[in-house]
Amino acid sequence: MQVELDRRKPGHGPTGTPRKESDTVHLLSGVYEGVTTGTPIAFYIANENQHSRDYGNLAEVFRPGHADWGFFKKFNGIRDHRGGGRSSGRETAARVAGGVIARKILEPYGVSIRGACVELGGIGLPEHTVLELDGARSRPYCAAHDSLPPLWDAAVSEARKAGDTLGGVVRIEANNVPAGLGEPVFDKLQAVLAHAVMSVGAVKGFSVGEGFGAAKLRGSQNNDPLYPAQPPRPGGACFASNHAGGILGGISSGQHIIMHAAVKPIASIATVQHTVDKKGRAAEVQVGGRHDLSAIPRIVPVLEAMVALTLADALLLQCRMGSIDISCHA
Amino acid sequence: MQVELDRRKPGHGPTGTPRKESDTVHLLSGVYEGVTTGTPIAFYIANENQHSRDYGNLAEVFRPGHADWGFFKKFNGIRDHRGGGRSSGRETAARVAGGVIARKILEPYGVSIRGACVELGGIGLPEHTVLELDGARSRPYCAAHDSLPPLWDAAVSEARKAGDTLGGVVRIEANNVPAGLGEPVFDKLQAVLAHAVMSVGAVKGFSVGEGFGAAKLRGSQNNDPLYPAQPPRPGGACFASNHAGGILGGISSGQHIIMHAAVKPIASIATVQHTVDKKGRAAEVQVGGRHDLSAIPRIVPVLEAMVALTLADALLLQCRMGSIDISCHA
Amino acid sequence: MQVELDRRKPGHGPTGTPRKESDTVHLLSGVYEGVTTGTPIAFYIANENQHSRDYGNLAEVFRPGHADWGFFKKFNGIRDHRGGGRSSGRETAARVAGGVIARKILEPYGVSIRGACVELGGIGLPEHTVLELDGARSRPYCAAHDSLPPLWDAAVSEARKAGDTLGGVVRIEANNVPAGLGEPVFDKLQAVLAHAVMSVGAVKGFSVGEGFGAAKLRGSQNNDPLYPAQPPRPGGACFASNHAGGILGGISSGQHIIMHAAVKPIASIATVQHTVDKKGRAAEVQVGGRHDLSAIPRIVPVLEAMVALTLADALLLQCRMGSIDISCHA
Amino acid sequence: MQVELDRRKPGHGPTGTPRKESDTVHLLSGVYEGVTTGTPIAFYIANENQHSRDYGNLAEVFRPGHADWGFFKKFNGIRDHRGGGRSSGRETAARVAGGVIARKILEPYGVSIRGACVELGGIGLPEHTVLELDGARSRPYCAAHDSLPPLWDAAVSEARKAGDTLGGVVRIEANNVPAGLGEPVFDKLQAVLAHAVMSVGAVKGFSVGEGFGAAKLRGSQNNDPLYPAQPPRPGGACFASNHAGGILGGISSGQHIIMHAAVKPIASIATVQHTVDKKGRAAEVQVGGRHDLSAIPRIVPVLEAMVALTLADALLLQCRMGSIDISCHA
Repeated sequence: MQVELDRRKPGHGPTGTPRKESDTVHLLSGVYEGVTTGTPIAFYIANENQHSRDYGNLAEVFRPGHADWGFFKKFNGIRDHRGGGRSSGRETAARVAGGVIARKILEPYGVSIRGACVELGGIGLPEHTVLELDGARSRPYCAAHDSLPPLWDAAVSEARKAGDTLGGVVRIEANNVPAGLGEPVFDKLQAVLAHAVMSVGAVKGFSVGEGFGAAKLRGSQNNDPLYPAQPPRPGGACFASNHAGGILGGISSGQHIIMHAAVKPIASIATVQHTVDKKGRAAEVQVGGRHDLSAIPRIVPVLEAMVALTLADALLLQCRMGSIDISCHA
Repeated sequence: MQVELDRRKPGHGPTGTPRKESDTVHLLSGVYEGVTTGTPIAFYIANENQHSRDYGNLAEVFRPGHADWGFFKKFNGIRDHRGGGRSSGRETAARVAGGVIARKILEPYGVSIRGACVELGGIGLPEHTVLELDGARSRPYCAAHDSLPPLWDAAVSEARKAGDTLGGVVRIEANNVPAGLGEPVFDKLQAVLAHAVMSVGAVKGFSVGEGFGAAKLRGSQNNDPLYPAQPPRPGGACFASNHAGGILGGISSGQHIIMHAAVKPIASIATVQHTVDKKGRAAEVQVGGRHDLSAIPRIVPVLEAMVALTLADALLLQCRMGSIDISCHA
Repeated sequence: MQVELDRRKPGHGPTGTPRKESDTVHLLSGVYEGVTTGTPIAFYIANENQHSRDYGNLAEVFRPGHADWGFFKKFNGIRDHRGGGRSSGRETAARVAGGVIARKILEPYGVSIRGACVELGGIGLPEHTVLELDGARSRPYCAAHDSLPPLWDAAVSEARKAGDTLGGVVRIEANNVPAGLGEPVFDKLQAVLAHAVMSVGAVKGFSVGEGFGAAKLRGSQNNDPLYPAQPPRPGGACFASNHAGGILGGISSGQHIIMHAAVKPIASIATVQHTVDKKGRAAEVQVGGRHDLSAIPRIVPVLEAMVALTLADALLLQCRMGSIDISCHA
Repeated sequence: MQVELDRRKPGHGPTGTPRKESDTVHLLSGVYEGVTTGTPIAFYIANENQHSRDYGNLAEVFRPGHADWGFFKKFNGIRDHRGGGRSSGRETAARVAGGVIARKILEPYGVSIRGACVELGGIGLPEHTVLELDGARSRPYCAAHDSLPPLWDAAVSEARKAGDTLGGVVRIEANNVPAGLGEPVFDKLQAVLAHAVMSVGAVKGFSVGEGFGAAKLRGSQNNDPLYPAQPPRPGGACFASNHAGGILGGISSGQHIIMHAAVKPIASIATVQHTVDKKGRAAEVQVGGRHDLSAIPRIVPVLEAMVALTLADALLLQCRMGSIDISCHA
């Protein structure tokens, strides 16, 4: 669990904040002698390196691009302004921890989940580049290809000088997902995956397979023909392509599930911004703190975790029926 | 209710099927003397113009791009092949009916929801075109602008000759949504909207505000500065722009909620496709039936309904707290 | 399904109404070629023998002992007074139909559910009488013992003359339930069973095992000692008694689950009662209609169905974990 | 919050254990400057006086009357035997804390919830005794009447000598509950109350109003006639009696809600009991520890809390509809 949490924790990498936190997990319940007991797993991560003064000047104004305003309206002006509360990125540590358990449920079925950044600050890859997801974890920016980090270094360096921040796009793949997961109507697999991924702060878009690109294709281009499994067997089939991204009619097809998430630039920029204060008066705000320059790459293990949790749920739902079948994967 | 259902029903418009269905609603419960009684609203729409033979040849093979394969795997080979069952577009009639009720909950708050098609077959609008959503309902294709239908007519005509189908992009706006809707963590407003919209068959992508475009912006470009409401008042503010699309930190900001959905081309194309049969043998399939050339524009009232249902839920959740406030809308 | 629905339908037995209804099921969806398809099972039972005039005089007053008053307050005076709506016993037909499916899930595990009436109009059995539940279905009143119907005939005859109604107690046993069902905290097995059984109209009390009698026992009397299974095996045990009624700490123990439900007398009595009308004025009401003299025995298949649905849920939840074990049953 | 938790904590009263725990609450989140912020309220109560050795000898055997056996079967033999885990009474501290918040939601509506013990070790009150619930909090055993503690002292003293334990019955009243709470079918108010109350360990039975006594009454006795409110007004009514216990057809009637819960004797008795060990061999167990002689009266604030939480839920659900009306209360 600590390994995954370390991928998420602040204070490392080219887009990172200088704020160091150890994110050490203190388990309170649910694990005994090395195995889960069925009891809820509760843990505690102390907020070690929090300077309250960093947030003191933000008690009276609303930071643009942040949840401050919505929370103020939602909760009738009652607001704990320190550090963003539930809209802080710290909240995602629990998601990552949950994802570790979810992966343990998925592993016996061969399901693995890998994320990588494919775009940062508007800089992506030429079309038809073959991605190298396996190496992403060890690359700077969790980049999907060796060619990306040098390009991104320049953009990051320039944005840092300008006191500005960058957004990007994360690709997440779930490999070897059995066919048959997902519910037919309201809880289609892409719907619950969208729910999970878009519940992560900063995500503004989600797509499966060709996504918005599918809108430009014709049916004859977008359909994935089936052909016999090798060796042929009843109910056995493979696909000639994967435009669908592994989900058809809301149900997993047995192909890899391919998803993309659009990540907005971090709202905490260093320059002065116009805003209003609680009394409705014009004000200026300069967000001090020590903030990341981009949610990328720290958001990658969080998105992977949300996909893992969603697929583990879908798998457990389907397992009740005793009908998991692992087909060939195109 | 019948008005909205007529927007969804088959058999009209340039992309429509020649299959005519009246989609007449027979109410079974829930309405008495013109008002809802609190009892579940049940209704029945008879499947009037269904030729069973249209589907007879599909009992043994899997149609590419359809849910056939996933359902076959999910339900251990038990399959009612007639008409797609729950993965048929007919299922969406109930969503539209539900949306009509949801709009009645939203109306007293001034909330209105409008959808329009902004792209078909890859043909969209030049950047910075001002949309004309109000007229969309009365335009062919439910198009977002007068300039689009002529361009799309040509593409549709050409695709029809080729026996092919088209996808597109739908924009949905929710106007005058009060600030404060949505839950802070797992049920962020964009997450439940994504869940709802992506539960509609054929939707492969969803975004809020700048969406995937936000990934290319800098924080200083993407943040929406606040300025005092006119006249100024405590807790009053407006926004200088709406890159966020009306949601910040998962909570509605009081601005219009702007969403886009990517709609894939209809999988039922007229040409012969490669597939396999239930025994796993190579086969060919030609989908007869009388199918639409595009889910656009029939999908528009369905997506509007899903947004209406989601916002009505969020509004009722928040109303419990007695804190609805309707701010100015940029 | 029709067999179970016939046990519930009106118009038969010593406590029955003369109102005859065939309760014929018209399946709308979910079953194809004799098996369920995974699609929701929808069916329609026409209300064949309903005289609207029976209820016409009830539009303006509230019947004592009925839901009229609560519904009037809940729905701000909007009320469809015809036949009780969702608070009518007709609603339970759907429960019985659902229970038939639930039993099909339970059967492969050997689980069977049997209900019987143990008390009517205050007349029960001498303590320590051995019940004969197997014969209950074919006895009048679904009585738990051959000695009961003659005693109850006299009470029913006398109540009928007085225009009055009777309550009673139903015992439900779930036999061969595997150990390990139920959730440890808020969804303890007795809690979800209580929820299910007390959601049936007219049920005013629910108990498991010794129930209210357990409050009078000492720990040394109420505890059920364990002894080795025959033949002994790891994790094998039987119980010397079953005061707990098959549930310990919210989890099924592998023993038979023993439940009792208190059923109030039918509120629709033939005599004149004091009440008020919608305008708050004193009024009298005489409930015409053709009503049962007791919910017993028609309520028995309904309670059985609710127990079956609840146990099927619990079983499917536990099956995910792959750990169903069927122990010996005391 | 601490006040209510102190009512629940161990180590006081005539049935108490000598185990002293301070049950001091350490708030982790959700409260800022004296008000709740909308963030989940997390708190931590340290287990201060836990002798691990008390439980050491219980690792290999199953205690009769406890959840040990069910948990062992449920979780495939994986078991943290220390202190009962989630089946320990300690779990109820969180319920009491939640109830404190729920009461704050109910208070503005005038709703109050009071519990009292009406039976201990089989010793109750003569029929028709007028209860004195207001004084219960300050009486030993949280007794419902001044005459009870002396009678119970003798029973407790005798049971303590025998190393045995006692059960009892708790009455809970919810006063001034508005009419209209509860859902009409599966979530009838009595059903969700039953769920909540029977989710508390040791509760084996639950009833509303006359409960099992209603089964012995006739309709003409059990119905509660309505009469005009004073002064008369549209939709105004009072009831001549309250046999229903404040719920009709699953909906609150505006009368006081009267409930009873049967509490079994504590399973941890001091005498030697027969059982089996994990290997399925006959064994003996003597539960050392320092256990209460009865769950009464410590269970009272827990049951009150569960009722408060359930009613607060029902009230918030109904408030959405803007139709709370507080009638006169018989």
